Amino acid sequence: MTEQKPRDPDALHRHLRDVKELLSRQQLVEDLVHRQRMPHQKLVESITHKQNLARLRRKLDQLHPADIAHILEALPLTERRYVWDLVRAEKDGDILLEVSDAVRATLIETMDPDEIRAAVETLDADELADLAPDLPPEVMQEVIDSLDQEEQEQVRAAMSYPEGTVGALMDFDMVTVREDVTLEVVLRYLRRFEALPDHTDKLFVIDREERLRGVLTLESLLINEPETLVSEAMKARSLVTFAPNDDACGAAKAFERYDLVSVPVIDAERHLIGRITVAEMVDQIREESEAEIFSHAGLREEEDIFAPVIRSVKNRWAWLAINLVTAFAASRVIGLFEGSIEKLVALAALMPIIAGIGGNAGNQTITLIVRAIAMGQVEPSALWRLLGKELGVALINGLIWGGVVGLLAWWLYLSPSLGLVMTAAMILNLLLAATAGVLIPLIRQHFGRDPALGSSVLITALTDSGGFFIFLGLATVFLL
Amino acid sequence: MTEQKPRDPDALHRHLRDVKELLSRQQLVEDLVHRQRMPHQKLVESITHKQNLARLRRKLDQLHPADIAHILEALPLTERRYVWDLVRAEKDGDILLEVSDAVRATLIETMDPDEIRAAVETLDADELADLAPDLPPEVMQEVIDSLDQEEQEQVRAAMSYPEGTVGALMDFDMVTVREDVTLEVVLRYLRRFEALPDHTDKLFVIDREERLRGVLTLESLLINEPETLVSEAMKARSLVTFAPNDDACGAAKAFERYDLVSVPVIDAERHLIGRITVAEMVDQIREESEAEIFSHAGLREEEDIFAPVIRSVKNRWAWLAINLVTAFAASRVIGLFEGSIEKLVALAALMPIIAGIGGNAGNQTITLIVRAIAMGQVEPSALWRLLGKELGVALINGLIWGGVVGLLAWWLYLSPSLGLVMTAAMILNLLLAATAGVLIPLIRQHFGRDPALGSSVLITALTDSGGFFIFLGLATVFLL
Repeated sequence: MTEQKPRDPDALHRHLRDVKELLSRQQLVEDLVHRQRMPHQKLVESITHKQNLARLRRKLDQLHPADIAHILEALPLTERRYVWDLVRAEKDGDILLEVSDAVRATLIETMDPDEIRAAVETLDADELADLAPDLPPEVMQEVIDSLDQEEQEQVRAAMSYPEGTVGALMDFDMVTVREDVTLEVVLRYLRRFEALPDHTDKLFVIDREERLRGVLTLESLLINEPETLVSEAMKARSLVTFAPNDDACGAAKAFERYDLVSVPVIDAERHLIGRITVAEMVDQIREESEAEIFSHAGLREEEDIFAPVIRSVKNRWAWLAINLVTAFAASRVIGLFEGSIEKLVALAALMPIIAGIGGNAGNQTITLIVRAIAMGQVEPSALWRLLGKELGVALINGLIWGGVVGLLAWWLYLSPSLGLVMTAAMILNLLLAATAGVLIPLIRQHFGRDPALGSSVLITALTDSGGFFIFLGLATVFLL
Repeated sequence: MTEQKPRDPDALHRHLRDVKELLSRQQLVEDLVHRQRMPHQKLVESITHKQNLARLRRKLDQLHPADIAHILEALPLTERRYVWDLVRAEKDGDILLEVSDAVRATLIETMDPDEIRAAVETLDADELADLAPDLPPEVMQEVIDSLDQEEQEQVRAAMSYPEGTVGALMDFDMVTVREDVTLEVVLRYLRRFEALPDHTDKLFVIDREERLRGVLTLESLLINEPETLVSEAMKARSLVTFAPNDDACGAAKAFERYDLVSVPVIDAERHLIGRITVAEMVDQIREESEAEIFSHAGLREEEDIFAPVIRSVKNRWAWLAINLVTAFAASRVIGLFEGSIEKLVALAALMPIIAGIGGNAGNQTITLIVRAIAMGQVEPSALWRLLGKELGVALINGLIWGGVVGLLAWWLYLSPSLGLVMTAAMILNLLLAATAGVLIPLIRQHFGRDPALGSSVLITALTDSGGFFIFLGLATVFLL
């Protein structure tokens, strides 16, 4: 099969445009038919329609499953389903693996049990396990029953590890050899394969009990003389291996740090149970960063941008609710000072400046600290040093920006004392932001919580309410 | 050399703790010496000191350069320099490559020209080019002069491509073969190597003019019979290749999509000029996501968390200044309605709720749209459909959350009409947030600008000023 792979990013864009154009032509034909009330029968027989359909099908046949997945994600629901029906059945499984969870649901909805079964039958055990949560349970059961003993166990093993562990990401495509043979024998053995598993950069050397003895890199296999024994050419010490319950995030960092391609997964007795490749790790890194960006923006998860309105509302309501609570709290802080605002209404216009800049500075600090904790560079013992530094930054920023807003307030309201209160409030709120930006993540880390979760919302809530309280409080004491 | 590589993420943590402990013991000795005014001479001769030093050095010798880089990043400046001095010189170059830009500067500061020269002399041309911007120009020139002709050209080539292109990330470690030989010949040729370049999953097949004819995967080399010709075993069609000026971000997506390990880089006449590997792409993906997270938080770039205060202030001032401008604009909008607030001071307490929730909802929308544009899933033609959907979500959210805040306002201030104004203002501000969240990135994309840059700041500025205007305007018209 000659699949076109784009040699530049624009190629993928062109594929998408081609498909869209063919679709819109198709639409035109169907619209015409519809308006003339031509029976559907006739439509299918119409020549233009057939030509168009053939062209679209040919286009889709040439594309890599990952590219079709991309095109499906970029199409609105009706067109997406239309194209999905046209894709050749043998690609269905691979495409389902590639699309995002949200889009996968819209595709599976349109398939009957037989189609689903046909689509997933071609997949490997680990891929099947990945799709399992999205498939109808009865279909999944049937597919599992049709597998041989070993594969059934693999599917069950893969499904037994929770999301976010190495076990949930590993595959079972391993080439294993014994250590007491020569490289010549290994070379002859490999020639009996029709293909090697993707990302095979090393063979796994195991003993009779399937315990990992070492790894034989393809490099070592190729540069050593054929008479060499595997035991001499293999690497047996300082191996990077993972346990199935290891954190996937930590595994991804190890891949990054040591530039790995594949790593064996072993149990406590060193039995080889699977393998994890850089391809999974690349996806893992991308997903981690997306999750972080989405949670920053107050979204629970990735969204199919063409999802029905109601599904989007569900994805977004939780953070809006939290935001409502914090906004209400800030509003009550202001409520405490309604008397002061009645006397000096300028306070109402100036207070959002104090709160806003405090929030921005606090987010800067907390983002850096959370990141450093995630990278393992900060421990609770560093608290005082970090606090000292961030307070220093806050003091300088407070003097600079507090000075600027103080002058602005003086100029606008012709009151130097109002300006001084602005400056003082800005400095204090930035010091508060720095303290909270360091303390919140370190305290959460100390109690074993995720320092990142909702950190932006928390700090903003604090600098809003705190900023209003500081500014209105100072104004009440010194100006009224 | 037997370098310890951690088999679990905790191992790295343990290494860091060990080093810190040895350091603090060392510190203790030096402190004692200092207090007793023992001359430095004696200190160096003291036995405890020597033992400790030896242990620390041994520990560092066992560690992988990437792990030492990690430890250096996690140490405050004084300790960082102390450890850096102890690291064996031959690892210096690799460590400099691994640390973040900010930390690299602090390390290079402490080195004299000879040390720098010794550290970078062992590096490959592409690695040298990576470090070049951070090295003193005269040292760099000397090092380049000491290279042979071919390497000099490679360094110059690598340095000539701007950051963010494939050319700036490629290396020159390629194994090339001719197509008219048998696999047997290739196998014998490879046995003459002492090592293959990292991430060699394929050999590049070139003609006499060094033009790429195809690729011979190690898989194909291993599973085919030795008598097969390279031309028969190689893959020549539908190759993924890059041009040196291709966007690195697009290249990373191709690696992700097609699960690649290495890809040849060719010029317009198909001359092979370099190679790009998944290791570079993993770093690229991580850097992209970090840059996005930092810019969300209003940071210009990654920061050495132990950096001097003044460096941090420089990294953070730009976004604070922009934030000041937008906050000032919002403040002036409120200033327009000071008369209304004087008459009904509840408005001052309630207005941040409208602005805050509008900002949160706007950030949800704009994050999704920016992301979808970055993934190539949205084009300006999708505008109406997306706008319709987001307005639908905004309307539902507006009715729900607007209803809630309306009831709260009614209950707090015993005024049903104030409650109605709250609800109406919330709905309108969420509709504004949705419209801007869709329009801002699509318009910027249309004019060829980066849709992501400062998107969060822009939408927040709009929903703040807009929210104040809508709420205070409605209140002025209907309540006063």
